[in-house]
Amino acid sequence: KKIVTLAGDGIGPEIMAAGLAVLAAVAPKINFDYTIEAKAFGGAAIDAAGHPLPDDTLAATQSADAILLAAIGGPQYNDAAVRPEQGLLALRKALGLFANIRPVQIFEALKHLSPLKAEIIEGVDFVVVRELTGGIYFGEHTLNERTARDVNDYSYEEIERIIRIAFDIARGRGKKVTSVDKQNVLATSKLWRIVADEVAKDYPDVTLEHALVDSLAMKMITNPSDFDVIVTENLFGDILSDESSVLPGTLGVMPSASHAENGPSLYEPIHGSAPDIAGLGIANPISMILSVAMMLRESFGETTGAAYIERAVHQTLLAGVLTKDLGGQASLSEMTEAIIKHL
Amino acid sequence: KKIVTLAGDGIGPEIMAAGLAVLAAVAPKINFDYTIEAKAFGGAAIDAAGHPLPDDTLAATQSADAILLAAIGGPQYNDAAVRPEQGLLALRKALGLFANIRPVQIFEALKHLSPLKAEIIEGVDFVVVRELTGGIYFGEHTLNERTARDVNDYSYEEIERIIRIAFDIARGRGKKVTSVDKQNVLATSKLWRIVADEVAKDYPDVTLEHALVDSLAMKMITNPSDFDVIVTENLFGDILSDESSVLPGTLGVMPSASHAENGPSLYEPIHGSAPDIAGLGIANPISMILSVAMMLRESFGETTGAAYIERAVHQTLLAGVLTKDLGGQASLSEMTEAIIKHL
Ligand SMILES: CC(C)[C@H](C(=O)O)[C@@H](O)C(=O)O
Ligand SMILES: CC(C)[C@H](C(=O)O)[C@@H](O)C(=O)O
Repeated sequence: KKIVTLAGDGIGPEIMAAGLAVLAAVAPKINFDYTIEAKAFGGAAIDAAGHPLPDDTLAATQSADAILLAAIGGPQYNDAAVRPEQGLLALRKALGLFANIRPVQIFEALKHLSPLKAEIIEGVDFVVVRELTGGIYFGEHTLNERTARDVNDYSYEEIERIIRIAFDIARGRGKKVTSVDKQNVLATSKLWRIVADEVAKDYPDVTLEHALVDSLAMKMITNPSDFDVIVTENLFGDILSDESSVLPGTLGVMPSASHAENGPSLYEPIHGSAPDIAGLGIANPISMILSVAMMLRESFGETTGAAYIERAVHQTLLAGVLTKDLGGQASLSEMTEAIIKHL
Repeated sequence: KKIVTLAGDGIGPEIMAAGLAVLAAVAPKINFDYTIEAKAFGGAAIDAAGHPLPDDTLAATQSADAILLAAIGGPQYNDAAVRPEQGLLALRKALGLFANIRPVQIFEALKHLSPLKAEIIEGVDFVVVRELTGGIYFGEHTLNERTARDVNDYSYEEIERIIRIAFDIARGRGKKVTSVDKQNVLATSKLWRIVADEVAKDYPDVTLEHALVDSLAMKMITNPSDFDVIVTENLFGDILSDESSVLPGTLGVMPSASHAENGPSLYEPIHGSAPDIAGLGIANPISMILSVAMMLRESFGETTGAAYIERAVHQTLLAGVLTKDLGGQASLSEMTEAIIKHL
């Protein structure tokens, strides 16, 4: 199994090392053989090769069995997102990573971090499914001196495949899909709703509800335990999936997966490269480590290995080993070692 | 002064009556003379005239000094938004209501309603300024059987005038503008940021910060007291202004204003027509009543009258007169009478 790692910038290299240390520790327990190929991506790749996604990085990801990405960007690159149209967005498009999956869960040991009252976050456990290779992200962009234009395109097929992913996930969980659109204004949303209703016919065991994006942006916070699988288009998904991280109250414990129809999936923390604490050895590696667990489960069918990691993370948190962002004093390496010990 | 009222659907007529009762009670205290012209709009207008915005309604609003809108929509119209492109959106466009203003405040007496912890909402007091007549709402919409397209257009002038509104408001408040865009992806957002930086030069006394919409959707909940004036384009404003209502924990106390370059402004509650409780006499009239206060201040310069109403609302809430949605048992008329008594 070839795993390509894109450590990126800021705290990226540190947390990637932590994730790989945990992988190395769990692998013998589950007889998992793998090789690692580290490649430059993002700001680091601009520094090294003048381009955020060098050809050999792209080629390596294309022949990988799975990809781990840590984080990219930093103030020295003069753009928080490191030329996304040549970097992150180009990578998503080239690999066809159309389905971005973000589980939202509250860790018992971290409940106090949520800005929300305890009774609101009680029982929160949902997944945000975001369409990742279509919509206004990839339509024509025109910037003139006095006018600008973006085009939002969706095809039936693009909508259908992401809605199916949402229904498939819901079938294995709470059997409810909330499809989010702005159907009272956008043509793409009208099509979205038509397709969602059509796909729903193939899943009589799963309930479909529609929500307008403005209304959902409220309900996700006021009634978060109502949701099981939330599915939406690229731009709404960008906003709502970031908004959902408000519930656990920390970006530090949320992994994500991005899947293609064929080819490797990519796993990454939802947080950024935190340049202000880069190199200090105090970054929180949990999102990265849980991304490794997602990879084991979703790319390699290693459910036992994934469960080992997830349990070890829970136990480490319950044991009070917390990095600074979580209100504790553990260093990155102390936390990583504690997780490995709990495996 | 001619005030045109659009009572609309559901609880619309009841809360409009409450708002007008408060206006009638405050008017003699401030020597405010006015006439009311009631017109059909929304579902009620579809029933009466086959169109959500009949010609004579539009003509009346165009010759008004101010417009009060209660709420529109209902299940019998088979579309939650009652054909917005012919109704609400057409009205906004015809009147040139490009600047939508929503103050976000926490009422002392209602703090417990917020889903957020007390320390998070402490000191929250900001205004969301949403561009209301441009962007993807009014670009071309194309719906085919297998594809759909929406076009997002902004011109320099459209952006400039809304940014200026935000800076003008900030100048009279906390002197900080947070401009929200998706500059790392959208051409319209790149132009937006250029214009914001340009306008900022005319306001050396006001601080401008930029935020990406995904990040802001988090920070508005985790750090709401950091904000003074948030300004953004139409679609982001739709999502973020609804999201902001999470902070007070109720839609029942939030008014809004929409302004044009020339011509009348429109004032309305941010909540909907609540068809499930229509006609029961239990609706909460406060958003409507505070919209009347906003009208007095912003369209007629009647700051004293506005302050009377706002104080009376505060005192009524502190006195524990609460409608059902606020956790109390007061009827719509009991609450309205209590507010009038406190004037
Ligand atoms: C960096 C940016 C282009 C990207 C996006 O908007 O997709 C990011 O916000 C994300 O969600 O991964
Ligand atoms: C009804 C709908 C078209 C409208 C909008 O999106 O502008 C509503 O959500 C609002 O915010 O006033």
